[in-house]
Amino acid sequence: MCGIFAYLNYNVSRERRYIMELLFNGLRRLEYRGYDSAGISIDLHPTMDSHCSEFQPTLSSPLVFRQAGKIDHLVKSVYQEVDASDLNMEESFTNHLGIAHTRWATHGPPSSRNSHPQSSGKDHEFLVVHNGIITNYVVLKETLLRHGFVFESDTDTEVIPKLAKFVFDTLTEQKIKDGNNSEQVPFRQIVMEVMSHLEGAYALIFKSPHYPNEVVACKRGSPLLLGVKEVAEDGSRGASFNGKFIKKTEDGKPKEFYFASDPSALVEHTRQVMILEDNDVAHIKDGDVSVYKFDFGKAKTIGGLARPASVHRALSILEMEVEQIKKGNYEHFMQKEIHEQPESLTTTMRGRLIRGGDSKLKGVLLGGLKDYMWTIRHCRRIVFIGCGTSYNAALASRAIVEELSGIPVTMEIASDLLDRQGPIYREDTAVFVSQSGETADTLLALEYALKKGALCVGITNTVGSAIARKTHCGVHINAGCEIGVASTKAYTSQIAVMAMLALAVGDDSISSQGRRDIILDGFFDLPNKVREVLKLDSEMKELAKLLMDEQSLLVFGRGYNYATALEGALKVKEVALMHSEGILAGEMKHGPLALVDETLPIIVIATHDSCFGKQQSVIQQLEARKGRLIVMCSKGEASLVSPNGASRVIEVPQVDDCLQPIINIVPFQLLAYHLTVLRGYDVDQPRNLAKSVTTE
Amino acid sequence: MCGIFAYLNYNVSRERRYIMELLFNGLRRLEYRGYDSAGISIDLHPTMDSHCSEFQPTLSSPLVFRQAGKIDHLVKSVYQEVDASDLNMEESFTNHLGIAHTRWATHGPPSSRNSHPQSSGKDHEFLVVHNGIITNYVVLKETLLRHGFVFESDTDTEVIPKLAKFVFDTLTEQKIKDGNNSEQVPFRQIVMEVMSHLEGAYALIFKSPHYPNEVVACKRGSPLLLGVKEVAEDGSRGASFNGKFIKKTEDGKPKEFYFASDPSALVEHTRQVMILEDNDVAHIKDGDVSVYKFDFGKAKTIGGLARPASVHRALSILEMEVEQIKKGNYEHFMQKEIHEQPESLTTTMRGRLIRGGDSKLKGVLLGGLKDYMWTIRHCRRIVFIGCGTSYNAALASRAIVEELSGIPVTMEIASDLLDRQGPIYREDTAVFVSQSGETADTLLALEYALKKGALCVGITNTVGSAIARKTHCGVHINAGCEIGVASTKAYTSQIAVMAMLALAVGDDSISSQGRRDIILDGFFDLPNKVREVLKLDSEMKELAKLLMDEQSLLVFGRGYNYATALEGALKVKEVALMHSEGILAGEMKHGPLALVDETLPIIVIATHDSCFGKQQSVIQQLEARKGRLIVMCSKGEASLVSPNGASRVIEVPQVDDCLQPIINIVPFQLLAYHLTVLRGYDVDQPRNLAKSVTTE
Repeated sequence: MCGIFAYLNYNVSRERRYIMELLFNGLRRLEYRGYDSAGISIDLHPTMDSHCSEFQPTLSSPLVFRQAGKIDHLVKSVYQEVDASDLNMEESFTNHLGIAHTRWATHGPPSSRNSHPQSSGKDHEFLVVHNGIITNYVVLKETLLRHGFVFESDTDTEVIPKLAKFVFDTLTEQKIKDGNNSEQVPFRQIVMEVMSHLEGAYALIFKSPHYPNEVVACKRGSPLLLGVKEVAEDGSRGASFNGKFIKKTEDGKPKEFYFASDPSALVEHTRQVMILEDNDVAHIKDGDVSVYKFDFGKAKTIGGLARPASVHRALSILEMEVEQIKKGNYEHFMQKEIHEQPESLTTTMRGRLIRGGDSKLKGVLLGGLKDYMWTIRHCRRIVFIGCGTSYNAALASRAIVEELSGIPVTMEIASDLLDRQGPIYREDTAVFVSQSGETADTLLALEYALKKGALCVGITNTVGSAIARKTHCGVHINAGCEIGVASTKAYTSQIAVMAMLALAVGDDSISSQGRRDIILDGFFDLPNKVREVLKLDSEMKELAKLLMDEQSLLVFGRGYNYATALEGALKVKEVALMHSEGILAGEMKHGPLALVDETLPIIVIATHDSCFGKQQSVIQQLEARKGRLIVMCSKGEASLVSPNGASRVIEVPQVDDCLQPIINIVPFQLLAYHLTVLRGYDVDQPRNLAKSVTTE
Repeated sequence: MCGIFAYLNYNVSRERRYIMELLFNGLRRLEYRGYDSAGISIDLHPTMDSHCSEFQPTLSSPLVFRQAGKIDHLVKSVYQEVDASDLNMEESFTNHLGIAHTRWATHGPPSSRNSHPQSSGKDHEFLVVHNGIITNYVVLKETLLRHGFVFESDTDTEVIPKLAKFVFDTLTEQKIKDGNNSEQVPFRQIVMEVMSHLEGAYALIFKSPHYPNEVVACKRGSPLLLGVKEVAEDGSRGASFNGKFIKKTEDGKPKEFYFASDPSALVEHTRQVMILEDNDVAHIKDGDVSVYKFDFGKAKTIGGLARPASVHRALSILEMEVEQIKKGNYEHFMQKEIHEQPESLTTTMRGRLIRGGDSKLKGVLLGGLKDYMWTIRHCRRIVFIGCGTSYNAALASRAIVEELSGIPVTMEIASDLLDRQGPIYREDTAVFVSQSGETADTLLALEYALKKGALCVGITNTVGSAIARKTHCGVHINAGCEIGVASTKAYTSQIAVMAMLALAVGDDSISSQGRRDIILDGFFDLPNKVREVLKLDSEMKELAKLLMDEQSLLVFGRGYNYATALEGALKVKEVALMHSEGILAGEMKHGPLALVDETLPIIVIATHDSCFGKQQSVIQQLEARKGRLIVMCSKGEASLVSPNGASRVIEVPQVDDCLQPIINIVPFQLLAYHLTVLRGYDVDQPRNLAKSVTTE
């Protein structure tokens, strides 16, 4: 995915340097979404106020800066360019729109020409930043090529600004032909006409010298938020924004507007946000926001001339602390988020666990599910659907859901379900797990399951995300903003939520009451146990030193910790760039054992649960093959897993079996973190990866 | 697993050299079952006939030869020892029992003292060869230690001969105490008393100087066959063995008996075999075979004094050609079995496909399932259960079964189902896939599913195997004996059978008639297409040369070929000992993409099916990351998967999507084979692995 950002100041004077730094900063907050190239566009000169209703025959072309590499690379190159030119950084703009983009390459390699903003061509009559994928770009490109457009990039995006120019030229020409040249075609109308031709997923922000200081943004499938700040006329922050809806600007009262792909780029500016919905078209002009609902059907039938009325859209308050988007005393977000887990788990559990005592029964309260609990309890099967780490979290929770509900759980990787068009039925409960709530495959699988009539449950970390909105019901994991690309605290909170889900679904069984009570007690003590396991930090750093030059790593787990093996290996793979593979211990003899020799490091998870005996036998067999073992075991059991002391042992606190994966993943997170630092790779922005995958 | 073998000649004179060579040869046939150490035991001197009913105070201790390493290593060391001694290799034995064992280490590293036969101690009063695992050996060992036994090995097996000696001594002492020393305690009684103390899985063969020229063999959970050959008195092969049951020996007519873990060690001697069932105790004495049924319950209650009557057991005829166990013109079994696939698939399909034409409808006939088809069609879900390659075959067939049956298919790795104790219900159809039909985890999962009341269907390559016997119904894949440890032809035949299963289950739907007809046509042409893809042999050898020094390999597939990616990577992993990993292409962006750089070789499977567009996009993205790609595509589509010619391309013939995995795996099999040869590893007996995994 990519990150898009825009900043519009209205009737408040801002220097060029301020605007540029604000754009760069917005990109830095979004950088985790993509970081192989970036770009911004600002104006060369302050423009007349935008009330001018006549055509401007001489356009003031915006400036566009684009650069392969990370944001800091862009910043450096921009300042170099500025230094070499006579651009006045102190020049003030009372009204101005700047747009910005940080990219995760899908079409075409990272390079300056493939970076955004993408342009309509000469004079940058239309500039676009885009998050998503246009699936029909090939067809559009062919059409535009026939109309004489010359393409400069390999991107799918480039068709959008070019199409905008084509639409603008056509409609303008027609107006002139009709003799109606008193009024300009509204910017939003150009955009809606463009939208009617686009297929795929997108969030778009348009900038055009034809419409100075105006911005149009729209979305379908990809996330986009608008932040609004009222400013006192001296330029300082004004009184808090009152009223539920965006009000009409009175008397040109100063305001600032921010568009961003996610709230982390907004929270330091304002907490007044509007979450755009699919097919929303937001148009800001003269300090007023109008939101239009794009109707694909109508647009198709009556062409670009539709004039939909604007809709009212509520503002909401961001529940996010500025600290969440800063590293504090940590060197990396991943590190911070690993060490935050006692707190994030506490937030996940807050208000959801009933402690019992006195007359109250122990239990679990999941407000978002209570109206659907009966349906879930009586479904034919539960289908867990997710990708990557979210899939692993679901896998870690599978056994306890099966045990307490008695309902068979089928695991589905979202893309595989879609590839197979696997059967989903009305009698199924489909549970969609996604940290961002925007994961493209999971979202598509959700749409598929909705069509099939299944009850759809969402488990996400992002209020207002597409998956949260489109599911029938769900649970928010409340892990707080996660910025490191490698998911850590979201993983443990996902498992906690799904274990709570198991408790809630199984709530009506008397025979499992005892088991449930034990798990509940385990929950209350869980943050302390996580605090305890975090003390392994320096031990895992030592282990990382030992392993840093290895090429391969195997991780064996089973039962509840099969998922831990997969997720532990995934962490090492994605940030430390080491070929690590998680393997079901029970499959060892069916192939992986061939790899075992004195050199290949192998981590075996053998904490105490019902599979412990089998894992002991696995360890014996690996030792018989002279395997180079590192064994994770429950505190005090080192002698049971390495009787002769031949293996390195990691002792972790023991908790109830179904919560053990929450403990056991922590040493892997620490190991992956330290390996990455030692190997000299980027922790928060691993090579080739983006935080959430919003394209198929 | 291990291989056990025994040879008993009765009233036919055999020289020591003949006997030893016959034992060695038996082990060679079984070597694929385990090859880290081996051993044999023969007699030092011909003994008096075994009619002697008095105790022999001076025992003639048998000779025991044991050696770490492969069979040839044992043979070499035995002949060295013989040369250094005055053992007469030409000495003749009219009656003699030799036992032999080839080991796959589970308890204790490969070494001479951990090899079998395991001994009761001094004088080898009892010698045992064992295939399986004794799970309660620790407890038994403690008891025997208390009784003064001294253990020499780390094996679980050693408790068995020691326990036999303990039982023998105790019962004999009691007899003497009772004043009843006229008759020796029968050998079988010793063994049955021993069995009453053993937990776990085993096939055992006992040899004892107390019972010269007698043998007792028993089994529970592990396979064991008895071959019988009548010999003309001149020592040549006699008339064919008539009669369904094993007859009482008349007048000491010469016979030869062979025990073996599987038929491949028997077929060159005789086709008259008896497949031992669980709890069978076979006792051969004076040329007569008696089979007793060990009753665990009874044994427990009345101690070792039970005297069960012998049972009649049918002989069957081995349907196996001697060619199957030989390499022919090939250098390795794996190579032979890869190239045999056009024929093995033909055998798999034989008699099962109805070609249509005239008045006949096209269709599929699976005799073993026809009485259960209604139940399968109306089940709630189909659960595919397997391990390793068999699991991959089931995964490859999942989509077509789902598509044609409309029934959701849940995939279960057998050990994971057991670890989780996952829910299985009466309404489920559980399909168990195992080449050998003896895979321990799959077998245990079968027993679990039977208890839960599910309809159990077996898909195996071994008639009379435990899984074939214990399932309600099933299909035999008829791929012929597979000796290479890396499964090749069994994999493709398994997929073929499961695709036929899908056709049969979906047989009643009119709407899918067209689709089914196309698949059926595809089946008829399949052997030709496999012949075509086998022509890639030299191309894959070239590729192997290119990749032979790599440490890692990734394989990306999706849809029908997700399984191909897993299985292709497994092949490379298990024989070429290269860390290869199969990855669902849809998960690429959720982690694995981080590994991609200019050096890591990646094979992408992108043959033409409904996922082709998505795979093209995967290839684009990998190219954007400068990935080192090898793309498998449909013939004639190289330009679609590598437009700029940057990737190496493997073109394979295109078949119907659900049969494509049968074609696509072949180049991987060839690649794995050539990689292994080039890297100098053992093709047929890869490090640390055994053909089928008969222990958990």
